[in-house]
Amino acid sequence: MSSFIGCGARYGGARAVIFGAPFDSTASYMPGSRFAPAALRNESGAIETYSPYLGRDLEDIGVHDMGDLELPPGDAEAMLRAVERRAAEILKDGKIPVMLGGEHLVTLGAVRAAYEKYPDLRIVHFDAHTDLRDEYLGAKMSHATVIRRCWDILGDGRIYQFGIRSGTREEFAWAGGGHTNLRRFDLKGAETLADALGGAPVYLTVDLDVLDPGVFPGTGTPEAGGVSYAELRDALKAAARCDIVGADMVELSPPQDLSGVSTLTACTLLRELLLMAGASTDGSNELIK
Amino acid sequence: MSSFIGCGARYGGARAVIFGAPFDSTASYMPGSRFAPAALRNESGAIETYSPYLGRDLEDIGVHDMGDLELPPGDAEAMLRAVERRAAEILKDGKIPVMLGGEHLVTLGAVRAAYEKYPDLRIVHFDAHTDLRDEYLGAKMSHATVIRRCWDILGDGRIYQFGIRSGTREEFAWAGGGHTNLRRFDLKGAETLADALGGAPVYLTVDLDVLDPGVFPGTGTPEAGGVSYAELRDALKAAARCDIVGADMVELSPPQDLSGVSTLTACTLLRELLLMAGASTDGSNELIK
Amino acid sequence: MSSFIGCGARYGGARAVIFGAPFDSTASYMPGSRFAPAALRNESGAIETYSPYLGRDLEDIGVHDMGDLELPPGDAEAMLRAVERRAAEILKDGKIPVMLGGEHLVTLGAVRAAYEKYPDLRIVHFDAHTDLRDEYLGAKMSHATVIRRCWDILGDGRIYQFGIRSGTREEFAWAGGGHTNLRRFDLKGAETLADALGGAPVYLTVDLDVLDPGVFPGTGTPEAGGVSYAELRDALKAAARCDIVGADMVELSPPQDLSGVSTLTACTLLRELLLMAGASTDGSNELIK
Amino acid sequence: MSSFIGCGARYGGARAVIFGAPFDSTASYMPGSRFAPAALRNESGAIETYSPYLGRDLEDIGVHDMGDLELPPGDAEAMLRAVERRAAEILKDGKIPVMLGGEHLVTLGAVRAAYEKYPDLRIVHFDAHTDLRDEYLGAKMSHATVIRRCWDILGDGRIYQFGIRSGTREEFAWAGGGHTNLRRFDLKGAETLADALGGAPVYLTVDLDVLDPGVFPGTGTPEAGGVSYAELRDALKAAARCDIVGADMVELSPPQDLSGVSTLTACTLLRELLLMAGASTDGSNELIK
Amino acid sequence: MSSFIGCGARYGGARAVIFGAPFDSTASYMPGSRFAPAALRNESGAIETYSPYLGRDLEDIGVHDMGDLELPPGDAEAMLRAVERRAAEILKDGKIPVMLGGEHLVTLGAVRAAYEKYPDLRIVHFDAHTDLRDEYLGAKMSHATVIRRCWDILGDGRIYQFGIRSGTREEFAWAGGGHTNLRRFDLKGAETLADALGGAPVYLTVDLDVLDPGVFPGTGTPEAGGVSYAELRDALKAAARCDIVGADMVELSPPQDLSGVSTLTACTLLRELLLMAGASTDGSNELIK
Amino acid sequence: MSSFIGCGARYGGARAVIFGAPFDSTASYMPGSRFAPAALRNESGAIETYSPYLGRDLEDIGVHDMGDLELPPGDAEAMLRAVERRAAEILKDGKIPVMLGGEHLVTLGAVRAAYEKYPDLRIVHFDAHTDLRDEYLGAKMSHATVIRRCWDILGDGRIYQFGIRSGTREEFAWAGGGHTNLRRFDLKGAETLADALGGAPVYLTVDLDVLDPGVFPGTGTPEAGGVSYAELRDALKAAARCDIVGADMVELSPPQDLSGVSTLTACTLLRELLLMAGASTDGSNELIK
Repeated sequence: MSSFIGCGARYGGARAVIFGAPFDSTASYMPGSRFAPAALRNESGAIETYSPYLGRDLEDIGVHDMGDLELPPGDAEAMLRAVERRAAEILKDGKIPVMLGGEHLVTLGAVRAAYEKYPDLRIVHFDAHTDLRDEYLGAKMSHATVIRRCWDILGDGRIYQFGIRSGTREEFAWAGGGHTNLRRFDLKGAETLADALGGAPVYLTVDLDVLDPGVFPGTGTPEAGGVSYAELRDALKAAARCDIVGADMVELSPPQDLSGVSTLTACTLLRELLLMAGASTDGSNELIK
Repeated sequence: MSSFIGCGARYGGARAVIFGAPFDSTASYMPGSRFAPAALRNESGAIETYSPYLGRDLEDIGVHDMGDLELPPGDAEAMLRAVERRAAEILKDGKIPVMLGGEHLVTLGAVRAAYEKYPDLRIVHFDAHTDLRDEYLGAKMSHATVIRRCWDILGDGRIYQFGIRSGTREEFAWAGGGHTNLRRFDLKGAETLADALGGAPVYLTVDLDVLDPGVFPGTGTPEAGGVSYAELRDALKAAARCDIVGADMVELSPPQDLSGVSTLTACTLLRELLLMAGASTDGSNELIK
Repeated sequence: MSSFIGCGARYGGARAVIFGAPFDSTASYMPGSRFAPAALRNESGAIETYSPYLGRDLEDIGVHDMGDLELPPGDAEAMLRAVERRAAEILKDGKIPVMLGGEHLVTLGAVRAAYEKYPDLRIVHFDAHTDLRDEYLGAKMSHATVIRRCWDILGDGRIYQFGIRSGTREEFAWAGGGHTNLRRFDLKGAETLADALGGAPVYLTVDLDVLDPGVFPGTGTPEAGGVSYAELRDALKAAARCDIVGADMVELSPPQDLSGVSTLTACTLLRELLLMAGASTDGSNELIK
Repeated sequence: MSSFIGCGARYGGARAVIFGAPFDSTASYMPGSRFAPAALRNESGAIETYSPYLGRDLEDIGVHDMGDLELPPGDAEAMLRAVERRAAEILKDGKIPVMLGGEHLVTLGAVRAAYEKYPDLRIVHFDAHTDLRDEYLGAKMSHATVIRRCWDILGDGRIYQFGIRSGTREEFAWAGGGHTNLRRFDLKGAETLADALGGAPVYLTVDLDVLDPGVFPGTGTPEAGGVSYAELRDALKAAARCDIVGADMVELSPPQDLSGVSTLTACTLLRELLLMAGASTDGSNELIK
Repeated sequence: MSSFIGCGARYGGARAVIFGAPFDSTASYMPGSRFAPAALRNESGAIETYSPYLGRDLEDIGVHDMGDLELPPGDAEAMLRAVERRAAEILKDGKIPVMLGGEHLVTLGAVRAAYEKYPDLRIVHFDAHTDLRDEYLGAKMSHATVIRRCWDILGDGRIYQFGIRSGTREEFAWAGGGHTNLRRFDLKGAETLADALGGAPVYLTVDLDVLDPGVFPGTGTPEAGGVSYAELRDALKAAARCDIVGADMVELSPPQDLSGVSTLTACTLLRELLLMAGASTDGSNELIK
Repeated sequence: MSSFIGCGARYGGARAVIFGAPFDSTASYMPGSRFAPAALRNESGAIETYSPYLGRDLEDIGVHDMGDLELPPGDAEAMLRAVERRAAEILKDGKIPVMLGGEHLVTLGAVRAAYEKYPDLRIVHFDAHTDLRDEYLGAKMSHATVIRRCWDILGDGRIYQFGIRSGTREEFAWAGGGHTNLRRFDLKGAETLADALGGAPVYLTVDLDVLDPGVFPGTGTPEAGGVSYAELRDALKAAARCDIVGADMVELSPPQDLSGVSTLTACTLLRELLLMAGASTDGSNELIK
């Protein structure tokens, strides 16, 4: 399987472009998300290209799979540069980059590129964790600081966080001080996001650990009490009505996914996300039931 | 453990008869359901024979366990003949066959036997997948075509599908054309089934992957977004008010069930199904609270 | 990691004291809960000390971790004596013992000690199983008889059971005869418990298999159809408004927890329980949102 | 599979009789050997009944499988009584008991029965561990004291230990003082055992952890540096030239045998042992090439 | 990873051509070898292309990787036709086919093709099992009959079997009657094979279960008492001095390879085999130290 | 378990001091060695403190366990500084540092410290891999370059490598050019090392993947064809007759060690190494039999 199922479009004609960022060096609990892009492609043959939820088929929309970046383990700065370069190139060509992590820090590289093109960028963030520390074990660049680093770029009020159920007291207080819009525990509010943002460009980042570990054990820092698959899918569908200019799906960790179910769940969610993103940007939202 | 817990009745006095069909040769993703009948028996000692949901005990109803068919790996036709012969024999003796798969293709053998005796047979089908392809990888006989093969026998409007959330666009369209009654995503409508079918004979087939992979990872083609255990149990209880003349439970795959929880869940569900089926056919439905 | 995260208070100043009872010799299905106390400590670094649900931090309340008892495998009586001695010592010092099992039989030792100090003791019991057999495989002392043994001490009407979904017909009938207050399947009624008990001293025992095996596979006798993490957390929060004088959390079995998610879920629940217990007994319930 | 492969002889005509002792309550590291008898039977269909090493077939010699004893978890004394009773019964009928553990303590029950019939009994013991402690964690009856308990019965110089590579300084010193004949690290000397013992009755106990954990990881206390499968098989063949009056094979722990290879290895070794024992006692040793 | 490491040569210039036959439908114990070709390619990046044993590098010899055949699960005849067609095509182009199983039955397809071109073909066979049954569970085409089916084509005295340690009494007797040259237990005699065969064309089939399950647990029917990696590598090196016209490596089963070590071992062995085969047929054997 | 078994000496009186370096960020295949120090301590209770091979007991020699360094994931330079500082401190106090990796790159920090004190330092290196690349995936600091980096400090002829069976052609050629003394495949020559080095100070680094993956699967880059446990133990015993001034044991990866056997094997080997090192440096070699 050399590309994700149904993503056989040529680059030139593609509306969305997926690429892998197999990096997990700052993982503090369980490393392994570096293996996610390969696992997603290898196992994607087990799902259908057609979504009965959306009534659309991956074969109908143009997605190209560029494969993985080559990233040296242990060098976060090199990784960030490589991700930014790749995302900028795709954005320059008028396409939507959809990045497959890897750990959450990879998001920062893509956000840098998206901000460069869209200075009024917003971030919509699904996660179990705040990711708002200013540093973690002495490091500024970490999966635990990544949204704080994004805030360094975007500033107050531009980041919308959903499903957050873990963080330090300080992180929650900092967010509550107006720096980000943080929704605790569930995904309520996602349904009004598109109206609230009124056409502003949005980078969508999905940390899969927002899901309950019962349905998604295959991640590096699972946290009890998450949302169901249907809740996440519905919230993504609502969020996809925004003007999505880039997206990612991070923190699947195949070594923790002993049953293989998390990988398949991520495959299905990626299909839905691609179908949603394809719809949201080509004006054909009305096709989605 | 030589028989499923609480199924120690002699054949002669039994109302329901369970037998295993350990076959998985057409499995396209993860084989392993061949090991399900043995696993169900071996682990059944970990559950009680009494159901607090139904207020009944397996010891009270007569169930006989005939053990497994001997099936050569790789020969689907031989398997279908062996299953049909066994099911026909049990039906001829006025008993309800309850088959333990194996993969879903085993259902076809039992449906052939049930149709032979009951020409106005209906099928009630719980599954994540449509199973309505006309052929799969060039094969007519496959776990992915089994309900289509049943339709070849029964014809339009006689098959009721619940919980379906995966299939090709063509399969959904074909079902939607009146060939089957297909309920997407959930089990709604099961509660009115007994009234709708008005006493017609029913073959009940339960593909356990209708359950959410979070609660049932141990299956060969898990699909995100399924129903909960309680939803399935309640729908089965409603469906059991039909005139059940045969039933099966398929696609438990012990090698994918690393925690052992899926096997125990299937054991519990099989107990409920046997208690329901026993009740539904001996006129004592009123005992079920 | 020599103590559970955030439990670094000295014994003298602690309000609650945790200790491990690594014993699983009467486990009838899958042994392994003996490894739970060590696993909870080792993995607790993966969660935060702060609970966004309660708005409190483990660092703020005084919890001391005394480590594990040394218990010889295979000697239930010696275990019960050691647990009773440890619990009595903590109670004598005016502190709340919070025991980490081990299998459920360990509860009996702590209940003996609590009853000695509080003759009007009540037990609040969350579990999938009745645990009301009078003997099991010929043994009086077993994880399957533990609540019956507690009843021997407390007598009728003093034990409140929630979430029960497995037992023999006799056990349910016995409970129904007024011996215990048994709530089947869910946790309803926990929210009125504090009012109903009106300040009576309560020993709280949490058998983690009350959770659905989908979210908590890592236990020795998983049973389908359990409650969600949120349901248990909310019920515990309600129950914590009682006058908790002792508590335990039992039946995590790390060898069955292949993904590690059950251990982390138990860590989070233990944090919540400690924060709740700390709050419930120092008069600061009003702090809990 | 209701009996071990090829062991379908009726009790009356059997020369050797196998039975399971599924007990592991004194296991100090990893419990799980209670599951060994069932695993051996269930998986034995994967090996042949014919041994090309011995040129004999299990079908040719009469072995009966009596199934498992029912043993309450956590009660070592009850287990020892049940084992002794079963072994005595088989010995009284002039047959050879071959017990499948369970943990090593089960051996004591069978040795008691064998000593009752044969006061000049010898023990031949293959193991990684001395098992010569006088007590362990305060317990006299433990897998770690079992050979010392056997010595209590037999006295000095009657126990032959092979492959020992783990124990306390005191245990090695005690053995070295003439209490047992202890061979460290390898199995040398087994080849001259039959001559040395000159027809004395021998109880053979095989703790499978004598094997290197590379070839036999599925055991409760694996110890690096063990012997190969061929070395053990050859030593058993030599030892089988003694007058074997009883035998056991203990400490297979299926939960630790993730690949399943240890269970199959134990199956093969049990086949060889049965073929050897059958040969050694019916005068037909000359058949063994 | 779209091809096995170091096998990036174009078809036209390649001396050896590898292709996968992902089929395991007749597996009687543990299916899973269908996943072997993909696993070998995916994990091959973890080994080096250079062999210090042979002093050669995969980059130096021309190997092309054609990818996998598409094979319908459950249809042995269709599989055999597809394999034969592919092997014949490669042979016609003057290249050496190196097939990656899949179960052992795939060998038959390739042997048919090789025999078509080389009527004086010999087979050199490394295996734990005889594979000489005439039928198995009623089937003529099975992994347990494959060498017998090859004998149907080649006749007496043309098949050389090494390492055989499992089979029925009848199979060993049949082989011993002059039908095949069967070496039990070890690989002795492989070193003189090239001289004995004097330039006759040889098809080499390596069933990886010839290895000891300690070093190679990841296979569908592991058998205790096998050879070491070094023994197999050295025997292959000796056998490679024959005129190898085709080869295969079968019965790696990734689902049984939990540690991943068997897959890596097979990768290394495949590298050695390709380097040996490349050397043996281009006259440059002298390069091998 | 807060320290490795038998290592309860106070720092002041200790001859050897162990500390953990839980870092694995440059791991290119399977990360996980960061968990090794904790796993070694947690599981060490399963082995004895007494070595029957050496006739010595850990309780007799003074070893102190300093616990683990706190190392930020993803920052190799920070890790190297922390390791160097810790090792230098221990060396300054006249003790032998024994470091528990972590990946192999941690060795460089300790070698820097040892070289600072002993400018005529030698390195004795057991490994499957050359580790002699000048850079790897663009990085100078990597587990794949660590011995080359050590050579940068020590220069030609001072490094003795044993058991090497994997590397690029260039690495073998470079070593062969006199830069290091490289022994391929086995450990021959270790027995004469002490004589050859004539009292020069030696840093001993043991990459556990020098062991065969059959006996040691729990490592990040397993390589077929390694040495046995006994071979490594004997070679270490010979090497320990050198003047060992520092040592480490690296590349145990608990997530790859599903059976737990590799961790126990490493525990045993660490015990032997400590007993050997203790003996080699206090003049009491004659005690070792």
